[in-house]
Amino acid sequence: MTSHSKLFDDAVAALTGLPGIGKRSATRAVLHFLSRPQEEGVDFAQAIKKLVSEIKYCRKCHSISDGDLCTVCSSKKRDQQFVCIVESVRDVMAIEDTGQFNGVYHVLGGIISPIEGVGPENLNIDSLKLRLKEDQVKEVVMAISPTIEGETTIYYLSQIIAPMDIAISTISRGVSFGGELEYTDEVTLGRSILARLPYDVKKS
Amino acid sequence: MTSHSKLFDDAVAALTGLPGIGKRSATRAVLHFLSRPQEEGVDFAQAIKKLVSEIKYCRKCHSISDGDLCTVCSSKKRDQQFVCIVESVRDVMAIEDTGQFNGVYHVLGGIISPIEGVGPENLNIDSLKLRLKEDQVKEVVMAISPTIEGETTIYYLSQIIAPMDIAISTISRGVSFGGELEYTDEVTLGRSILARLPYDVKKS
Repeated sequence: MTSHSKLFDDAVAALTGLPGIGKRSATRAVLHFLSRPQEEGVDFAQAIKKLVSEIKYCRKCHSISDGDLCTVCSSKKRDQQFVCIVESVRDVMAIEDTGQFNGVYHVLGGIISPIEGVGPENLNIDSLKLRLKEDQVKEVVMAISPTIEGETTIYYLSQIIAPMDIAISTISRGVSFGGELEYTDEVTLGRSILARLPYDVKKS
Repeated sequence: MTSHSKLFDDAVAALTGLPGIGKRSATRAVLHFLSRPQEEGVDFAQAIKKLVSEIKYCRKCHSISDGDLCTVCSSKKRDQQFVCIVESVRDVMAIEDTGQFNGVYHVLGGIISPIEGVGPENLNIDSLKLRLKEDQVKEVVMAISPTIEGETTIYYLSQIIAPMDIAISTISRGVSFGGELEYTDEVTLGRSILARLPYDVKKS
C-alpha cells in the first residue's frame, strides 16, 4: 500500500521478510504498532534484538540454550546415553512437546543435500562422534524426515555409528494416528505392511 | 512449543501479539531469525524501533508522515480544497492505492462508538473544522464504512459541515464490481436499487 512514509515502508519491508507473512499482514502489523503505546513497539524490537544477539547454542547438542549447556543436556532426569538425532532445533521442540522422550538430543543443523550444497562436513557430525564415545551412548534414534535427503543422511550416519556398538533405530513410519487408509499414499501404506508391528493381545 | 530458552520464548511472545500471527507462525519467524545472519535480526529490530520512535503525524491531515506535513498535504498537484474524510491511516493508504483521488485527506483517528467509549471529542474534528475554513474547502467526501458507527459519524459530521457552504458526499455504496447479485446481502441490494445510477447510453 502507498504510505508516503519511508519509516513505514521500511518497517513493512522488514516484516514482509518473515516466513508466512505477506505484505498485507506486514502492513497490518505495522499499523498495529502505531495504534499501540510506543513502549510496546520498543519492547518488541528489544526482544528480537536480544534474541539474535544473546542466544547461545548448547555446546553438546547444538540446540538453542540460554547458557553453555541446554536444560536437557544438563538435566539429571534425562538419559544421557540415549541420543535422538534431529535435523533442527524445531524438531527438538516438536519432540519435547510430545513428552514421550526422556533421552537427549543432537541437532545436525541440516541434512545432507547435494542439490543445496550441504555435505556431511557442513553438519554437526564430528561433535556427534566425539560425544557418542565420551558419554558411552547406548542407543541413538534418528528422528529425521523420511525424504530422499533424510534417508541419505540416516544411511550416512548409520555407517559411522554401526562400528561403535550402539543400538540404532529410526522413529517409526506408517499410517498417522487418526489417518484414513484410503487417503494414505501408496509408499507409506506399502511400507507399513512390510514393517507391520506385532499386536499385543489383551488378556480378557 | 517447548523451547527451554527464555530468550526464545520472549521473542515468540512478542511476535504472537501481532494481528494475524499465532503462536505457530511466531515460532517459525523466530527460528527464521536464528537461521539467518545476526545483522538481519538487528536490522529488523531497528526498523521497528525507528518506526515507533520517529514516526510523525501530519499536523494537517493526521496521516503518518516522515515530516511535519505529509507528502499529500504538501503536494501542489493535489486539490487542497477537496477533502476526503477517513477513519484511519489504513484507509488513506487503500484510497491512495486506487490512484483515483486527487484531493487531500483528513484522518479522524476512529469513528464515533458509544460501546467502545469513543465520542466526537476523541476524534480529530476540531482540526477538521479549522481546516475547512482556513483552506476554503469546496467539497468533502466521507469515505467511512457503512456500519452503524460509521453512519453515526457521517451524520454527526454532516451536521457540522452543512452550515459551511461545502458540498458533502459519501463514497458510493452498492454491488461490488465483479460481485454476483445473488450473493449480495439484501440491504446492499435494496439500497442499490433506490440509489440507482443513470446509465450513460453510448452513441453507436
